[in-house]
Amino acid sequence: MQLFEDIAGVVGAAQLMRGEDAAPWARDWTGAYHGRPLAVVRPGSTEEVSRVLALAHATSTPVVPASGRTGLTGATHAEGALVLSLDRMSRIRAIKPGPRVAVVEAGVVLSTLHEAAESHGLLFPLTFGAKGSAMIGGALSTNAGGSNVLRYGSTRDLCLGLEVVLADGRVLDLMSELHKDNAGYALRHLFIGAEGTLGVITAAALKLVPRPRAYATAMVAVPSVGAALDLLARLREATGGAVEAFEYMPRMFIEGHVAKMRGAREPFDRPYEHNIMVEVGATAPRDADPLPDGTIPVVTRLEDTLAALMEQGRILDATVARSEGQRREMWARRESAAEITHDRHPFVDTDVALPLDRVEEFLALARRRLHEIDPGAEDFIVAHLGDGNVHYSAYPTRDDPDHSEAIRSAVDAAAVSLGGSFSAEHGIGLMKLPSMRVHKDPVALEVMRGIKAALDPKGILNPGKVVPTS
Amino acid sequence: MQLFEDIAGVVGAAQLMRGEDAAPWARDWTGAYHGRPLAVVRPGSTEEVSRVLALAHATSTPVVPASGRTGLTGATHAEGALVLSLDRMSRIRAIKPGPRVAVVEAGVVLSTLHEAAESHGLLFPLTFGAKGSAMIGGALSTNAGGSNVLRYGSTRDLCLGLEVVLADGRVLDLMSELHKDNAGYALRHLFIGAEGTLGVITAAALKLVPRPRAYATAMVAVPSVGAALDLLARLREATGGAVEAFEYMPRMFIEGHVAKMRGAREPFDRPYEHNIMVEVGATAPRDADPLPDGTIPVVTRLEDTLAALMEQGRILDATVARSEGQRREMWARRESAAEITHDRHPFVDTDVALPLDRVEEFLALARRRLHEIDPGAEDFIVAHLGDGNVHYSAYPTRDDPDHSEAIRSAVDAAAVSLGGSFSAEHGIGLMKLPSMRVHKDPVALEVMRGIKAALDPKGILNPGKVVPTS
Repeated sequence: MQLFEDIAGVVGAAQLMRGEDAAPWARDWTGAYHGRPLAVVRPGSTEEVSRVLALAHATSTPVVPASGRTGLTGATHAEGALVLSLDRMSRIRAIKPGPRVAVVEAGVVLSTLHEAAESHGLLFPLTFGAKGSAMIGGALSTNAGGSNVLRYGSTRDLCLGLEVVLADGRVLDLMSELHKDNAGYALRHLFIGAEGTLGVITAAALKLVPRPRAYATAMVAVPSVGAALDLLARLREATGGAVEAFEYMPRMFIEGHVAKMRGAREPFDRPYEHNIMVEVGATAPRDADPLPDGTIPVVTRLEDTLAALMEQGRILDATVARSEGQRREMWARRESAAEITHDRHPFVDTDVALPLDRVEEFLALARRRLHEIDPGAEDFIVAHLGDGNVHYSAYPTRDDPDHSEAIRSAVDAAAVSLGGSFSAEHGIGLMKLPSMRVHKDPVALEVMRGIKAALDPKGILNPGKVVPTS
Repeated sequence: MQLFEDIAGVVGAAQLMRGEDAAPWARDWTGAYHGRPLAVVRPGSTEEVSRVLALAHATSTPVVPASGRTGLTGATHAEGALVLSLDRMSRIRAIKPGPRVAVVEAGVVLSTLHEAAESHGLLFPLTFGAKGSAMIGGALSTNAGGSNVLRYGSTRDLCLGLEVVLADGRVLDLMSELHKDNAGYALRHLFIGAEGTLGVITAAALKLVPRPRAYATAMVAVPSVGAALDLLARLREATGGAVEAFEYMPRMFIEGHVAKMRGAREPFDRPYEHNIMVEVGATAPRDADPLPDGTIPVVTRLEDTLAALMEQGRILDATVARSEGQRREMWARRESAAEITHDRHPFVDTDVALPLDRVEEFLALARRRLHEIDPGAEDFIVAHLGDGNVHYSAYPTRDDPDHSEAIRSAVDAAAVSLGGSFSAEHGIGLMKLPSMRVHKDPVALEVMRGIKAALDPKGILNPGKVVPTS
């Protein structure tokens, strides 16, 4: 095929995979989406991405951009499409400690950037379970969230500038390292979270932040979700807004973790229904630097605050990490969520956001709706509670895509009925197209289609994703 | 004219002004932009905005959205256009203290929202000199910045949801009060900062933040701009990132203030060349609540830090506000900038952003470029230094638009040559179209034109602004 010859001419024959060689790209991490890619191309530079897209555009060949492929919504499903893998574009172009900026290519693995920032005493705060495989391009394209959004925002909030290749191969230079830049439409925000349907992100300028000099991390048992939110408000006030993570794990999560992960332990001597992992970061030396007796002020203060709340009966139990090892154990528990849940099938996961004061109501409503549809189904809950972001999942009693979709749809509808969203941090991909169709403002869908048509008139970029057909 | 009859039918005859009645809308606050509006219409609801726009669209009538009209770039200039004034849509629809959200209409005056938030112990952090007249719709449409961006971000960062009326009258419901919402393209960000060229913002859901329980505010004299940035880094570290404002006022600013504002005083006993206003906010009780001796920890700590820096010779002088009155005096000085500068003509103002480590170089370069063009011109500088946002202004020796434009162009080019932007927080309007044409990435301009055509195919919304013709 002439197209393949032309593409091989751009990237080299070794970077164009077909048939068996393309098989690893035929399924994603969830295992839920299988496809037969036309071919896989791995360009090594923005210039090569540009030339490959120009060729695809000229031949109206569908292109699915991909990087770490740890997404959970099927956004990199590539039936009959050319997979454009950014994984070879893995250069950290620059780390600038003074202005605290990292300039990276789309194929940089998240944890690689973490290490690079750390070696300069800085932090790239975006973090989630898949950090060892997920790449920056995908994190930007899905506007990934994770466990530090409470303090640092989503990927969108950490991005200062972008380099994007458009559907026809034109390179759009939105690179900026400025914190204020009002020179025209905020195009960067259009590509962030667009899941590769509007352009291919090839590089970005990202904010780094001062690495907290110390953390105070704790597991806290509370009598209810409402009590957890009261705890959050009190901790935020007491710390002057320094709560970085506030993660909810009900009993079922703890049990799943202990059962499935080697070496996993219960957080408390007794089992509690409602468990929170909280982390407070301290950047000021007076909060973070050890006192002569070896204690660290931010840790002591968290202990004191939690002790006082226990005396008042507001919390049931608490354990504060006394070492980096104990802290890492707490994080490993939370970050095992995907591994705990995704090995049992059928499995329906959701990713809803609620106003904070509606979370408790939502959990009850979602369970009611689930059991109306499938009385024998079990649910599984984990939440970035500080953001109102609940991953409410279900194990249906029978393996039937329509049944699963009915469950997802009911849970999404429950969230929307309480002022929430059916997509908090995972994006839309293929999985949430039905909810987009039902719940998204119809005018917003028209506007999205208009923008898609303006930027990708042939519709070659990640076709069939994000925007439901009209 | 049938159109006027139809519009009067929608809003009532009293809310449609023509001829002399429309005169107040013929010029803006700067006095630099005069126009003869076709008419002025003041709808009272989103529904009325929708119907008026549908009428304008059907008749291809140009429409210029306007609210407080305190912008500095001519974005509400309305020669031959219908001015759509949002000033009657001034309802605060809700303040929700729990989730800390304000739902407001576009015509709410910024300081009115300040007061409403304050009455709930909360803060809407956006603030700038024109806060008593500027309205939320304009602040969103220009992505206004101001003096607290360092801590809280620009208007964009404070917006959770939008209601927008499109060019043809369709109402786009992007209202959301969620902190995480990845349901489709980030359309909200497209309208924020688009200066009414893509749609008319009629309402918004805005973030409120805990109101600091105490402030420590100081004027500090430093030996140089570089020393000021060193001071900023040290204060940010010492306070754990609680610096809210870091404003630069050189000697010329202090002198202008004393000369032109009644009751204005010098900040120090001696005149210094480089003066900083810094403010630290304290939300945690342990930082903010008075000790038994009446001192406030955050204030004492700022005093101690500044005393130590003085001993080290890093700063030249400092005075910390000892009362709310003294604090307000410091703020009034900074916020008088527009009044100090805009009464002398000819006057060329700019609004550039620089990487922090290039600000000092920029100031020297801009002055050099100014004097190459007009050796007798004086300059005037004030800066949101913590954001790298410099307002470098000039008083040319002759009143000639081409001469003024040459100066602006040279200053903008100087900023861009150092990795900066020619628009930090004022937007583009008419004033910065020449710089958009010269300095904006050409592909970005093409994409902007494509989006404009998709959303406003007849080009009726604020025509001739923001996007230079191709």
